[in-house]
Amino acid sequence: MTIAAEIANRSANLVAVLHGRRDVRLETRGLPPLGQRDVLVEVRSVGVCGSDVHYYEHGRIGSFVVEQPLVLGHEVSGVVVDCGTQALKRHVGQRVALEPGVPCGRCSECRQGRYNLCGDIRFYGTPPTDGAFARYVAIHEDYAFPLPDELSDDAGALLEPLSVGIWACRKGGVGLGSRVLVTGAGPIGNLSMQAARAAGATTVAVADVNLERLDRAAQLGATRTIDLNERQLTPEDGPFDLLLECTGAESLTGQAILALRPAGTAILVGMGPGLEARIPVAALQAREITLVGTFRYANTYPAAIALAASGRADLDRLVDARFPLEEVDRALSANRENPTLLKVIVDVAPAASSEGSEHLLRRA
Amino acid sequence: MTIAAEIANRSANLVAVLHGRRDVRLETRGLPPLGQRDVLVEVRSVGVCGSDVHYYEHGRIGSFVVEQPLVLGHEVSGVVVDCGTQALKRHVGQRVALEPGVPCGRCSECRQGRYNLCGDIRFYGTPPTDGAFARYVAIHEDYAFPLPDELSDDAGALLEPLSVGIWACRKGGVGLGSRVLVTGAGPIGNLSMQAARAAGATTVAVADVNLERLDRAAQLGATRTIDLNERQLTPEDGPFDLLLECTGAESLTGQAILALRPAGTAILVGMGPGLEARIPVAALQAREITLVGTFRYANTYPAAIALAASGRADLDRLVDARFPLEEVDRALSANRENPTLLKVIVDVAPAASSEGSEHLLRRA
Amino acid sequence: MTIAAEIANRSANLVAVLHGRRDVRLETRGLPPLGQRDVLVEVRSVGVCGSDVHYYEHGRIGSFVVEQPLVLGHEVSGVVVDCGTQALKRHVGQRVALEPGVPCGRCSECRQGRYNLCGDIRFYGTPPTDGAFARYVAIHEDYAFPLPDELSDDAGALLEPLSVGIWACRKGGVGLGSRVLVTGAGPIGNLSMQAARAAGATTVAVADVNLERLDRAAQLGATRTIDLNERQLTPEDGPFDLLLECTGAESLTGQAILALRPAGTAILVGMGPGLEARIPVAALQAREITLVGTFRYANTYPAAIALAASGRADLDRLVDARFPLEEVDRALSANRENPTLLKVIVDVAPAASSEGSEHLLRRA
Amino acid sequence: MTIAAEIANRSANLVAVLHGRRDVRLETRGLPPLGQRDVLVEVRSVGVCGSDVHYYEHGRIGSFVVEQPLVLGHEVSGVVVDCGTQALKRHVGQRVALEPGVPCGRCSECRQGRYNLCGDIRFYGTPPTDGAFARYVAIHEDYAFPLPDELSDDAGALLEPLSVGIWACRKGGVGLGSRVLVTGAGPIGNLSMQAARAAGATTVAVADVNLERLDRAAQLGATRTIDLNERQLTPEDGPFDLLLECTGAESLTGQAILALRPAGTAILVGMGPGLEARIPVAALQAREITLVGTFRYANTYPAAIALAASGRADLDRLVDARFPLEEVDRALSANRENPTLLKVIVDVAPAASSEGSEHLLRRA
Repeated sequence: MTIAAEIANRSANLVAVLHGRRDVRLETRGLPPLGQRDVLVEVRSVGVCGSDVHYYEHGRIGSFVVEQPLVLGHEVSGVVVDCGTQALKRHVGQRVALEPGVPCGRCSECRQGRYNLCGDIRFYGTPPTDGAFARYVAIHEDYAFPLPDELSDDAGALLEPLSVGIWACRKGGVGLGSRVLVTGAGPIGNLSMQAARAAGATTVAVADVNLERLDRAAQLGATRTIDLNERQLTPEDGPFDLLLECTGAESLTGQAILALRPAGTAILVGMGPGLEARIPVAALQAREITLVGTFRYANTYPAAIALAASGRADLDRLVDARFPLEEVDRALSANRENPTLLKVIVDVAPAASSEGSEHLLRRA
Repeated sequence: MTIAAEIANRSANLVAVLHGRRDVRLETRGLPPLGQRDVLVEVRSVGVCGSDVHYYEHGRIGSFVVEQPLVLGHEVSGVVVDCGTQALKRHVGQRVALEPGVPCGRCSECRQGRYNLCGDIRFYGTPPTDGAFARYVAIHEDYAFPLPDELSDDAGALLEPLSVGIWACRKGGVGLGSRVLVTGAGPIGNLSMQAARAAGATTVAVADVNLERLDRAAQLGATRTIDLNERQLTPEDGPFDLLLECTGAESLTGQAILALRPAGTAILVGMGPGLEARIPVAALQAREITLVGTFRYANTYPAAIALAASGRADLDRLVDARFPLEEVDRALSANRENPTLLKVIVDVAPAASSEGSEHLLRRA
Repeated sequence: MTIAAEIANRSANLVAVLHGRRDVRLETRGLPPLGQRDVLVEVRSVGVCGSDVHYYEHGRIGSFVVEQPLVLGHEVSGVVVDCGTQALKRHVGQRVALEPGVPCGRCSECRQGRYNLCGDIRFYGTPPTDGAFARYVAIHEDYAFPLPDELSDDAGALLEPLSVGIWACRKGGVGLGSRVLVTGAGPIGNLSMQAARAAGATTVAVADVNLERLDRAAQLGATRTIDLNERQLTPEDGPFDLLLECTGAESLTGQAILALRPAGTAILVGMGPGLEARIPVAALQAREITLVGTFRYANTYPAAIALAASGRADLDRLVDARFPLEEVDRALSANRENPTLLKVIVDVAPAASSEGSEHLLRRA
Repeated sequence: MTIAAEIANRSANLVAVLHGRRDVRLETRGLPPLGQRDVLVEVRSVGVCGSDVHYYEHGRIGSFVVEQPLVLGHEVSGVVVDCGTQALKRHVGQRVALEPGVPCGRCSECRQGRYNLCGDIRFYGTPPTDGAFARYVAIHEDYAFPLPDELSDDAGALLEPLSVGIWACRKGGVGLGSRVLVTGAGPIGNLSMQAARAAGATTVAVADVNLERLDRAAQLGATRTIDLNERQLTPEDGPFDLLLECTGAESLTGQAILALRPAGTAILVGMGPGLEARIPVAALQAREITLVGTFRYANTYPAAIALAASGRADLDRLVDARFPLEEVDRALSANRENPTLLKVIVDVAPAASSEGSEHLLRRA
């Protein structure tokens, strides 16, 4: 009997499916089909992203609309429990973090290394591709990155939002001595701040209205915090070399751009509610400022793993709450109830019993 | 008797001074003071820029306000007629094109090669620095570039707007096979188009409402023209790798950005009327588009000269009208009266008489 | 009866196979297997590359050794005659140029857009992958680029060496006004020169000992030729911004590097005989010169097609001799006998008869 | 009486002058002339660089030959004691670190931000420009960077070699997760290692034969040390993304290049004895490796100050010995006698007496 068959015998795949706004149902499905170069992963830890919450609350994000039942969840770590016939790089029992978007590998964007812009990418939890609020998922082996022992399962899941921060820093060219302004102290802002610190920024100011989140940012490395309850950002807060905009708020973005130095760069990470926003173009022109949109990330996982494993990014301290897979709806509602929570984790218990799983791993 | 003294004897400096809106007066001044490394230049050809016209009509451009009498004109060629004691690189009689902005050379921007952003730059015809609607100007020798014989005096003057186009292309990374959209078929749009062609772009579409200017663009190398009288730009006009936006028109900019490919770049060259503009940020983010403001140019003159001298940019064909220095006001009004004129030249006659000048040159 | 079956009936695959040094034999094979996303291409024109000749003469190039019978040929154009079941982007009858290296699309190099460095790339005519001195080849549809009508079959084949030149120019950052030195006036040097011109270089000097090849370079756009029979290169030949080294000759490379300006770049395109070469490192350091190795190319075909179709690169004029597939050995020996030949083409006649082929195309 | 006059009265300028190989003499000179934008600096701490030692031992470095008596010393901190009439950015009493090379600010290299390559740069301790083994030096105010309180005088001096490391990292593109190999564990290697760490490198291996220096590197942040007494570098030590070569040793450079990943970069920091070196060009080509020479640095001081002030580079721990200005010859000989010393400092006592100097500062 193959491993997969044994798993299938012992434990069908428990999956949390979004059927409509605030309507997530637990269902039992078969194991996902395993391509030749895929690995089957027993999920361990899944982070709840703001986009998951947005789909849960609104059934859509911009042009991405949930029209069929959808499994959310794209911040994922787990353990390899089976390998496709040509998946020779991973082995059963290996702890892995999943890069949740698998691009086509052939189109013009992929060929140029911008696979995050691949038109055919299949990204977990984005219609129509199911995500990882599930006991088992399958993925191409090259998108399952071995997790070093230094990293917890949660940290493995949170490499995904760390990747967003790394990407923002790369796009903005953070380097030795950079002075960086991060607007927004949520998980993405916090991890962008940590990535900027790790990349050599010596000034990293974080601005937000949430005082608890500002405190968290200060604890994790922000060199300055700016409380936006009391005042707006002004040019005197700068000059900054770089803005990592993680709120999507139109007026804040405009203020922050005006605090950049000549030839500074503004990276748009957070998505706002509208298709358009008023941008201070006259300042962009007079000071040759560059404004760059970012979408997910590419080629960040090796760096994210190395940063976290070497202690230069602290992911575990972002985790404020955890819920079992069976309570995904509570996990998806937690932030609405308590907006200061940085990161909520869905903790997926091993298949049948921990004994069973350990047995399986020993056997492998 | 020194050359300068001889000149001063023979011919005082005739200067066209802007005193207020539509109030330019011819005045006689002394020769400009000559720094140790300056050269004294007898002006030959000065192009009329849209910014000159704007100052003439409105007395200001954005934050630059004409508060004192000001000499306009910053597209300049001429002949060296005297050299400061330490100006050893140029010689009397040498034809030169002037790069009209002299930066401080010491500040952080200058040190990093972004001297166009120098806070202390003195730029011809921008308050409070007088420009070149004059018989004589002085400039640091390193900003007086020798003109090869292949280039006419007019072409020497028009290296300045060509520099704007070169800078836009460099900022946007135009290269082999680039597909470029230029919005606006005025002088800057036309020269941006020519620069893009010269840099390897194989598609250069030019969009405008002015049919005559579209024709001119097509004659000078545009591979496609888009008549915006009949319709708006749409994504189907693209995809383009690069937008060179030369109108400053808000809605056109938005439409043009939507015609860019993923990871495309929009270069803002033309300045619009307002401090802000509505920008399609959602598209910027989903497609990782980069928006870059440009301000003048840096390090473009050697390339501009080489391009024009080798016939890869045609500057003379942009000239539609010429007026003597004594009729600067007509030159500054010409475009208002006939908006299809591409480039108006102020033709500065040699000092006393052409004999005198030739004599001077022979003597040197 | 399927198209492929019909082809197989009418005409088996004629293939020229290298069995040892100067031992090429014509063989009849079956049609190549067609993957789901592959297209079957009836070959029309195949350029003879120096590496083909090297394999033919020596049985190896550096670490690439011909240990099994091998089909050479990697500069290829042809016509699609069948499509795999999932190859939906191309159609039967379409003229195509083949990018001859198909990478894995998944490894770290591929993901970063450097697929030319993919460790698992399968490249035509490089052991153990068979090339295109054959009547039929199969290739992934994304590597078969539609040929516009403006381009001949020969030009389609020569997009491959043009790609080498484009890549060299991109690596070196050729731009508006660049001053470029090309050492070597063979096909790669000639096409590097053409690419540099198209990318905005205004000085392109070509140096060689072969006077006929220097003449050809001058005819096709070199602004200067340097006859190395009479003298060596010296710094006074420069300064150049960029060196495109297409000979692999150690001493010439050293001389050429010394003719670069401060912060100049030397691109190594030609491969020399040894693993090491003496490089003037003191000059590299004192002048911060960059030395870059290049290996094939990536993401060049769209640009190559656009350049050639717009007349900015002239490929047909490089062709000096043509031989039918049946005389591949003569094609591979031609350059030994006449070193001034720039490009030799292997002209692959359509399968059964031209009528048959045309019939097939009409039917499609 | 002006401040300068008062200083001149009280204390002439004590200067250590190199007259020939191992012939340094203490001399009394007048105060250096003070340009309008210069500041007069009372020197406090001067680091001994390997190039100082080389001039001392050999009277030359490559093409730089000591033909006239020369003052060495270019790693300098001090206190401003007078300002030129136009030097308005600094004030008397301000502690400063000196960037020891003042470029022309006008040439093509300067304009492009590569002022380290300025042909007219005047660099302390490089013929014919005197350096800072002196009680007073004058320098343009923009090259005297205010020292924050967190930094000691020694650290202020050592910003100079830190700048070399920062420059190497910038040229090599060190970033988040970079794997870096540093060859050579001397001061430059050590500081390059520290800069690489600060820039996000997660693997920084340092290779040397000097075990004590390797220990020091490990203490200051190297993640791995490689003892080259026992063995040579091999590709199995890598792959590294980046090599920072700080020895100038030909064979080591070659070995280290072979340990780079495809598309890796080798930065040449250390200067070797010869004009040429054997470089593994075949590997450079097959793997598209980039080799970059570096010469001093540009635009590094603000970053160096921020890194050191924030504790991300530890400069004080490099100091192993100190000598008064009167014993410069011992300082220049110290490394010959004890090759494990990392950094020797020349400690310049305040002018007349510490009281006098303090008095001066209070008065200012």
